[in-house]
Amino acid sequence: MTRAIYPGSFDPLTNGHIDIIERSTRLFDEVIVAILTNAAKSPLFSVEERLDLMKTILQPRFKNIRLDVFHGLLVDYARRSNAQVIVRGIRAVTDFEYEFQMALMNRRLTPEIETVFMMPAESYSYLSSRLVKEVAQLGGSVKGLVPDLVEQRLLTKLKSTS
Amino acid sequence: MTRAIYPGSFDPLTNGHIDIIERSTRLFDEVIVAILTNAAKSPLFSVEERLDLMKTILQPRFKNIRLDVFHGLLVDYARRSNAQVIVRGIRAVTDFEYEFQMALMNRRLTPEIETVFMMPAESYSYLSSRLVKEVAQLGGSVKGLVPDLVEQRLLTKLKSTS
Amino acid sequence: MTRAIYPGSFDPLTNGHIDIIERSTRLFDEVIVAILTNAAKSPLFSVEERLDLMKTILQPRFKNIRLDVFHGLLVDYARRSNAQVIVRGIRAVTDFEYEFQMALMNRRLTPEIETVFMMPAESYSYLSSRLVKEVAQLGGSVKGLVPDLVEQRLLTKLKSTS
Amino acid sequence: MTRAIYPGSFDPLTNGHIDIIERSTRLFDEVIVAILTNAAKSPLFSVEERLDLMKTILQPRFKNIRLDVFHGLLVDYARRSNAQVIVRGIRAVTDFEYEFQMALMNRRLTPEIETVFMMPAESYSYLSSRLVKEVAQLGGSVKGLVPDLVEQRLLTKLKSTS
Amino acid sequence: MTRAIYPGSFDPLTNGHIDIIERSTRLFDEVIVAILTNAAKSPLFSVEERLDLMKTILQPRFKNIRLDVFHGLLVDYARRSNAQVIVRGIRAVTDFEYEFQMALMNRRLTPEIETVFMMPAESYSYLSSRLVKEVAQLGGSVKGLVPDLVEQRLLTKLKSTS
Amino acid sequence: MTRAIYPGSFDPLTNGHIDIIERSTRLFDEVIVAILTNAAKSPLFSVEERLDLMKTILQPRFKNIRLDVFHGLLVDYARRSNAQVIVRGIRAVTDFEYEFQMALMNRRLTPEIETVFMMPAESYSYLSSRLVKEVAQLGGSVKGLVPDLVEQRLLTKLKSTS
Repeated sequence: MTRAIYPGSFDPLTNGHIDIIERSTRLFDEVIVAILTNAAKSPLFSVEERLDLMKTILQPRFKNIRLDVFHGLLVDYARRSNAQVIVRGIRAVTDFEYEFQMALMNRRLTPEIETVFMMPAESYSYLSSRLVKEVAQLGGSVKGLVPDLVEQRLLTKLKSTS
Repeated sequence: MTRAIYPGSFDPLTNGHIDIIERSTRLFDEVIVAILTNAAKSPLFSVEERLDLMKTILQPRFKNIRLDVFHGLLVDYARRSNAQVIVRGIRAVTDFEYEFQMALMNRRLTPEIETVFMMPAESYSYLSSRLVKEVAQLGGSVKGLVPDLVEQRLLTKLKSTS
Repeated sequence: MTRAIYPGSFDPLTNGHIDIIERSTRLFDEVIVAILTNAAKSPLFSVEERLDLMKTILQPRFKNIRLDVFHGLLVDYARRSNAQVIVRGIRAVTDFEYEFQMALMNRRLTPEIETVFMMPAESYSYLSSRLVKEVAQLGGSVKGLVPDLVEQRLLTKLKSTS
Repeated sequence: MTRAIYPGSFDPLTNGHIDIIERSTRLFDEVIVAILTNAAKSPLFSVEERLDLMKTILQPRFKNIRLDVFHGLLVDYARRSNAQVIVRGIRAVTDFEYEFQMALMNRRLTPEIETVFMMPAESYSYLSSRLVKEVAQLGGSVKGLVPDLVEQRLLTKLKSTS
Repeated sequence: MTRAIYPGSFDPLTNGHIDIIERSTRLFDEVIVAILTNAAKSPLFSVEERLDLMKTILQPRFKNIRLDVFHGLLVDYARRSNAQVIVRGIRAVTDFEYEFQMALMNRRLTPEIETVFMMPAESYSYLSSRLVKEVAQLGGSVKGLVPDLVEQRLLTKLKSTS
Repeated sequence: MTRAIYPGSFDPLTNGHIDIIERSTRLFDEVIVAILTNAAKSPLFSVEERLDLMKTILQPRFKNIRLDVFHGLLVDYARRSNAQVIVRGIRAVTDFEYEFQMALMNRRLTPEIETVFMMPAESYSYLSSRLVKEVAQLGGSVKGLVPDLVEQRLLTKLKSTS
């Protein structure tokens, strides 16, 4: 049995993330979608809000996923979770270089854990949580880029902070 | 008639910007050079100072340009301005990837507005407003990289803030 | 009035080419779609076959295009045609580097002719004439990647040469 | 159960290939290592020689692999083999762009088959069959870059053809 | 006699830096390893701590190096030091683009000073001071990535700041 | 004393090559400019013609260069020549990746020989022998891209072969 981890900030979950999750669940027996909470930078959604959104959206849709939150080194978390593989989506060359650097460092720290890279659908090739937030903050529509529920929460959140 | 927008922070205007503006004015009927004011990061020159510099330098030189300031989504501004095309200068691969991502997002938001990429002269291939400010702050000469008036204002500004 | 040239081998015309042609016709007064015949490498379709396909497919669809065939330096052809701009589609970083090199050489040869780069729809980001031929030769479907007429001619051509 | 295909020319098998095969066998239930025979270019080793080398070297070492030879479209072969995933090693940015283009085309032809990218050990980041052949032909040592048996066959082959 | 400068933040010194220093000392008569102190961002180690670490580790090992600290433009410092060449390590494409931009600007400011790029051992291709600090802060081992003394000081420093 | 090798096909010598040679002669005690004769592909100029051109153009201009021709592995040639360093010019990202791969392989074959990368002037950033030949064959001017003597020989050569 192969258990994979798909780590990220998911601030917020986009349709690009869901695309990679769907592809992963077809290849691996279990996929742990894990919210990384190290980031010093202040997120728009709290960890609880992100986890809540992901539960509502992802759990009815995928049988073989598990949602989790972690702190610390990704490879330590992977080892504790008995996962053999880390899944990363890549969209562009600059993604690829950063991901490669991280994957080589992770391999050095924990050689038995492998990183695999997957491609989102090309219609999500320009999509990132950061860009979704920027567009929404400037009044642009993010319909079709994020699930409807994320869009609603994003609009509510932005109204309350403006 | 084709109206183009050349957006940027222009903090400050460099000879690389002027190079792209000159090339654009030969291809399009009107070019709106538009200062984007969203940026959270604190600029060196105020919007008024930037606009003033650009008026003095650009207006005597190019017949078919218009200077403007905008806030919000670039594509919304382009639509309001009845522009059909956004002009972006690209110098390097990392530029290209970022610009591609933005252009795809802009196309999704407003499919009728096109983005075209233009190349500055190779002598400006390393030039950016950020690098000009860094060099000037460390006491290096920026003669030839920016118009003379920008160089003077930059030196005055840096003296007053140091 | 701005006249643009969109040069290529078009062996054969793909939906990615048509996408760039459509975008160009919205920005420029006239677009000359020009088949380059220098290539030493033996094409699958003769120049006459390519021109015939393009006439049938492109002329009913676009008012402001002209089809042509040229030999020699692109910039000499552009000058003879009174064009001010060369249009090139770019899909990826490696495209970008090659195109940049060519554009800088062309600018040196003929400074008054500008090159602009345009992005095809992301669904065509992986599409090239070479790949279309490879897939068809191995028995794969190219429906949706090329116009129907190109698909038919491609299948006929491949049957007769196998 | 997840069955993966690791396709290639393997002309000849290098330690970089074996590195990716080893990593794949830890993630997937079965890995089909499949020699692609389309290539028009004349190989150094015949398909039979390559298959023979791979049998001798790979079969004693990996339990869950199968060796095969195929002709035609990779995705058709994958479908016939009931494989869900194609494994590709990537070493550098130019690899990445080419592989991305192929993976997007393959996904379009057969959406149910996924491509995953894996990283070889960094000591193999510069290794390719082509470079191994070049170095050996110029009299350089390829010890450590290919299995000993491949090294011997390569030297024998090069003596007989020179 | 050729004098080279190897500039950096060295916050802290890694085995990747030492690898480049070793290679430089074999090519140039003298190598000045120079700590740049412009950086606005707050460093983990003070300039004095960094210089002390570098003295202890580098001076017994390399005969033809000199350690120094500088402020201001690198090329001004190089000229004052009678150095003819700046050495920079490059590991990846994104490094390369940034370094190229800086090297072109430096050449423009001081044409007589040349920049050369060198490659670290591939086992250090993913290594940076930033990544070392991140891993150590999250409790991962950095043994083998930095000298033992740097590892000790890093752990002491992190204990005192947490 | 440091001896460097600047290897290449030099078919023909361009101003970009001369730019790198000039920069190298300022950094190293001796620079061997070495024509590589392995290339299977048929060159435009014979080895003798290339050597003759380079003697006429380079020897009066640079004191500390030596011209040579070699066959076989570059690193074997470097060792026989008692050179410690190989100089390579890089202009773009794709150059960089290929050069990196070769440099890593060379380092593995002969660890004591170092490769350094240097940047040509930005006005030569698009220049290559291949492009010079293409432009000249299509009737374009290569004045300023190659020495006058190379331009003359190129025109004579192309007349005689057309």
